[in-house]
Amino acid sequence: MQIGMIGLGRMGASMVTRLLRGSHECVVHDRAPEGIASLVALGATGAASLQQFVDALRAPRAVWLMVPAAAVDGVLEQLTPLLQPGDIVVDGGNSHYHDDLRRASALAASGIAHVDVGTSGGVAGLDRGYCLMIGGEDEVVRHLAPVFATLAPGAGSAAPTPGRRAGHGSADQGWLHCGPHGAGHFVKMVHNGIEYGVMAAYAEGLNILHHANAGLRDHAVDAETTPLREPAHYRYEMDLPEIAEVWRRGSVIGSWLLDLTAAALAADPKLAGFEGRVSDSGEGRWTVQAAIDEAVPAPVLSAALYGRFGSRGDADFANRVQSAMRHEFGGHVEKTAPRPSPGS
Amino acid sequence: MQIGMIGLGRMGASMVTRLLRGSHECVVHDRAPEGIASLVALGATGAASLQQFVDALRAPRAVWLMVPAAAVDGVLEQLTPLLQPGDIVVDGGNSHYHDDLRRASALAASGIAHVDVGTSGGVAGLDRGYCLMIGGEDEVVRHLAPVFATLAPGAGSAAPTPGRRAGHGSADQGWLHCGPHGAGHFVKMVHNGIEYGVMAAYAEGLNILHHANAGLRDHAVDAETTPLREPAHYRYEMDLPEIAEVWRRGSVIGSWLLDLTAAALAADPKLAGFEGRVSDSGEGRWTVQAAIDEAVPAPVLSAALYGRFGSRGDADFANRVQSAMRHEFGGHVEKTAPRPSPGS
Amino acid sequence: MQIGMIGLGRMGASMVTRLLRGSHECVVHDRAPEGIASLVALGATGAASLQQFVDALRAPRAVWLMVPAAAVDGVLEQLTPLLQPGDIVVDGGNSHYHDDLRRASALAASGIAHVDVGTSGGVAGLDRGYCLMIGGEDEVVRHLAPVFATLAPGAGSAAPTPGRRAGHGSADQGWLHCGPHGAGHFVKMVHNGIEYGVMAAYAEGLNILHHANAGLRDHAVDAETTPLREPAHYRYEMDLPEIAEVWRRGSVIGSWLLDLTAAALAADPKLAGFEGRVSDSGEGRWTVQAAIDEAVPAPVLSAALYGRFGSRGDADFANRVQSAMRHEFGGHVEKTAPRPSPGS
Amino acid sequence: MQIGMIGLGRMGASMVTRLLRGSHECVVHDRAPEGIASLVALGATGAASLQQFVDALRAPRAVWLMVPAAAVDGVLEQLTPLLQPGDIVVDGGNSHYHDDLRRASALAASGIAHVDVGTSGGVAGLDRGYCLMIGGEDEVVRHLAPVFATLAPGAGSAAPTPGRRAGHGSADQGWLHCGPHGAGHFVKMVHNGIEYGVMAAYAEGLNILHHANAGLRDHAVDAETTPLREPAHYRYEMDLPEIAEVWRRGSVIGSWLLDLTAAALAADPKLAGFEGRVSDSGEGRWTVQAAIDEAVPAPVLSAALYGRFGSRGDADFANRVQSAMRHEFGGHVEKTAPRPSPGS
Repeated sequence: MQIGMIGLGRMGASMVTRLLRGSHECVVHDRAPEGIASLVALGATGAASLQQFVDALRAPRAVWLMVPAAAVDGVLEQLTPLLQPGDIVVDGGNSHYHDDLRRASALAASGIAHVDVGTSGGVAGLDRGYCLMIGGEDEVVRHLAPVFATLAPGAGSAAPTPGRRAGHGSADQGWLHCGPHGAGHFVKMVHNGIEYGVMAAYAEGLNILHHANAGLRDHAVDAETTPLREPAHYRYEMDLPEIAEVWRRGSVIGSWLLDLTAAALAADPKLAGFEGRVSDSGEGRWTVQAAIDEAVPAPVLSAALYGRFGSRGDADFANRVQSAMRHEFGGHVEKTAPRPSPGS
Repeated sequence: MQIGMIGLGRMGASMVTRLLRGSHECVVHDRAPEGIASLVALGATGAASLQQFVDALRAPRAVWLMVPAAAVDGVLEQLTPLLQPGDIVVDGGNSHYHDDLRRASALAASGIAHVDVGTSGGVAGLDRGYCLMIGGEDEVVRHLAPVFATLAPGAGSAAPTPGRRAGHGSADQGWLHCGPHGAGHFVKMVHNGIEYGVMAAYAEGLNILHHANAGLRDHAVDAETTPLREPAHYRYEMDLPEIAEVWRRGSVIGSWLLDLTAAALAADPKLAGFEGRVSDSGEGRWTVQAAIDEAVPAPVLSAALYGRFGSRGDADFANRVQSAMRHEFGGHVEKTAPRPSPGS
Repeated sequence: MQIGMIGLGRMGASMVTRLLRGSHECVVHDRAPEGIASLVALGATGAASLQQFVDALRAPRAVWLMVPAAAVDGVLEQLTPLLQPGDIVVDGGNSHYHDDLRRASALAASGIAHVDVGTSGGVAGLDRGYCLMIGGEDEVVRHLAPVFATLAPGAGSAAPTPGRRAGHGSADQGWLHCGPHGAGHFVKMVHNGIEYGVMAAYAEGLNILHHANAGLRDHAVDAETTPLREPAHYRYEMDLPEIAEVWRRGSVIGSWLLDLTAAALAADPKLAGFEGRVSDSGEGRWTVQAAIDEAVPAPVLSAALYGRFGSRGDADFANRVQSAMRHEFGGHVEKTAPRPSPGS
Repeated sequence: MQIGMIGLGRMGASMVTRLLRGSHECVVHDRAPEGIASLVALGATGAASLQQFVDALRAPRAVWLMVPAAAVDGVLEQLTPLLQPGDIVVDGGNSHYHDDLRRASALAASGIAHVDVGTSGGVAGLDRGYCLMIGGEDEVVRHLAPVFATLAPGAGSAAPTPGRRAGHGSADQGWLHCGPHGAGHFVKMVHNGIEYGVMAAYAEGLNILHHANAGLRDHAVDAETTPLREPAHYRYEMDLPEIAEVWRRGSVIGSWLLDLTAAALAADPKLAGFEGRVSDSGEGRWTVQAAIDEAVPAPVLSAALYGRFGSRGDADFANRVQSAMRHEFGGHVEKTAPRPSPGS
């Protein structure tokens, strides 16, 4: 079917490429002309302006936005006046589902449908396909099914789930209509919250293995350093790339994230190319805030999130408070040992 | 090669079966005669006593123990006097690596080699193969390589890791010599610690989705209940089996544990067959205790562990303390609403 | 000075009593006539209706609301039309500071000032005084200073802080103008967030002492129960009431919450009168949500909050998910041992 | 009574001073002669060697060790041969209670009694008194009661606990015989674990207040930075020294640690004199490890401990793992913004 794509960054461009491979007709627009040109070379129809973009689409138009969450309202402000009742706007980015609810309501006043699509898959999605979590009205989602089916990985990308009813919906093809407006981004939000937790679980475990040689290092002997009670228990020099590799086969913790970790460690065994400032893109925060609204305990997802905050130095004032307290009650003076170097 | 197996429970029996399929010669012993008989039917040599077991093995004997961690010392006490210098004892169970260090040292005094093997794979391992994390002396581990190669899944069970040097060791076949005595169980310990974290990450996320309908429920209006500020944000009835299914394809959080979760939810969408008392088998505890010895932060792995403790009611006294405090300073009286029923 | 109080519950009635003792003139209203009558007996002027209440106050009126957070908007809806420009509304309850910002802006349109006052002190505040955290415009807060000074504990209630500049502001008297609208409730919100963390710290520690006899109990010997490696390390029968008492003098962790804990334990050493369902009143949630907005790690405050959620059974579905996973990969069947009885 | 003190550092010297003020007879020894001289000037009997020290004490000797935990075994090795059956060794430092059990057993073989005393109070203890948590045999502890009574703060240092039976034991004087060998250090261990949790609770809360101006700062607008959804909610410049001060009177979170925090903030409002590397002295670690042995959830105490580890850079490898994963799946490149400066 015909679909328009606004936003031709890493994700948007790959998705158009996958749609073209699937014989869909794509009209594409971006503020950056280079992005348009390279997709035109693959068979897309380029549109230098939003007006051209809308003109090139047949009603009812299906417009997919793949722009940063912070840019969605700006695009909609310009786009909406050019659309007609019956047209469809798909937000495939990382919008907060609260914004979906607001935008769906605003667009509905103009007769325009809103569909929110949480899209997972990253840079590998072009070949692997994208996992699509979708919120919106039944009829509209059904109308877009051919697009979802092409973007999604398809049933063959994983073994059938034992005991699952065959032919029951599209989840086993990698796309799912999760519910009304916002449901797609809600599920994607939680997906990313889980992702943070899973990533941190591996990272903590690998860090414990990384320090399994603690008993081989000299320890400062002063009142501000806790001695290791049993140095003989920590005399292992673990080969992390090989450990990540062995876990990929047969173990309970095999996963795609582990595959990627093994690849990263194979390329850079000490991860010396990284400083360890871990960004977060919002969904992990929103997941925890939703958990709190619901009164659901989320200690693992929260710990993972706070680890990212801490990696960027955001606990520093709290740490100074504690050093100050220790100085007050015990006369303790902070140790000034340097932080470990990246390659340590 | 010839190998003896003591302990024919769920894991031991499956491993013998896989070894027999791989044309190894297996001598088997268990306190329960039924276990022996069913493996004899598959081609193993049964031994009704430890003496018979040892007699049936050719020196240097390779004896694999697959018994509960708490039973290892008892078995060794009876077995060791029957063995000879050059024989090998493999502990394939879930022993604490501290015990490996102690036992390896004690056995070395009799000229007997000790190998610790952390074994992951569960009931699926018979067909999928087992991920083997191994600690011990080089020569001894090399001697046992044919057994490890058969038990492990083999390289074909996962795609090669991009950038990994081909032909470098055995990790890409699913078994790895991790280091000296204890290293195998150390790596397995951390593996299970990670497993707890990953499991809890999915569980928390699914629980947040489970309660995404919080805005549809009536809330008590009293000073002891926090009102939901925006009920309109929590009006989703999420289909958890289908969400777990869709995440299996193309998403960043695809994993074997997710596959299992999808299967469990397909069979019992509300998990009404479970009460939620989550056992732990020790490794998660030891992982956190090792992290603390090493001064490595492990907030995610700890939170996962504490969640299990809490699921068994072990926070109850702490909760009563807090209710008592609230009563003291604010006159608050505990709410006595019933806990939600399993199917809720 | 003259002040009107709406809401004569536990907190409101005590505050009026303290104000009367401080020779202020109090006009009081509540939906429940009994509350009015008992304060009239102490010298307050009772008002049976909001109209009477407003009529009894001299302009510029100072109206203090001490009603549940969920009731504030309803009261304001009825009250505002009766007020005049220049009048002042003080919200002394536990409103979310977001609501302060909204209400202050709405009232400003009518020329009415809004002051938010976070009030801490609980049932002891009548005699101990209340800690007041205040947000609003300078002039308005200054106008109300006599009331704040009476409600607050006064400088004599604690030793001067060494190094603090004498005569610098009112914080050392127990009340503080924290900043513009919302600042008072913001500071009170964080105060309560801290309170949750401090309470949980004591509670966890006491629970560890409570279980210091773990080595004296029989443990199940099965694959689903982790054995205690060193039972000899856990053979203490700790006397918690006496331990809480001893910590009250000279230790680093002396506090008012500890004083209350000691009192609760003196009265009921096993806290058998509590079931351990710990309510939360919102501020702990909002504190964590604010931390997340600010990207500030708050693992302790969050863990305390989640402990309360968990005490009410809200982790149950997550626990069932983990039991289901364990059943899938390991064939583990949940243990069905009963939860410990309250007196255990 | 007569008592000998070995170890005249900050704690030991102050305790001797307090004992001398209480008219006890003190024999003192330290490896550093200056420490001895200054206490001799206050009336103590100095001993230049352990032999002189033992000779100056009347049997049954009471020897109090106030040396670093790591030095206790070394001192005992030299001291024990000089002692006689009936003599008493008191370990008043921060020994692990496991070591108490071992040492008490070893000393008992020579007829020497061991008493473990957890001592809290810090540099303020000289004037405030010390909170003493004691483990050992009844008769021996009774024998030392006069010393404990002098070191402890005494009943007058806090108001009586309502409902507590008057004259019941010594806890209300600030010292307590907690149980058999190790019980004193066990209770002190948990005390410090709680201390870490309480400190972190304040620190996190103050950090949230510190960042309450987040909406006033410019935020990077890029895909690696999560925008603040409502900057208008975070426009407060909080005066932390005054907030800590106001909480000291009438609030629920008043405590000695808060008093100290207020003093530290009064002296250095931005805590610019600290870098935020928070040491830990072992007890916090042992508390969590004990909790895990007991299967007691300790999420707050653990989070506090991990915060200290993290403040020293010990999460760095885990953070690099997560950055590496993000680079793999999303092509994300780490932001290289500098850490905030201490005064920020």
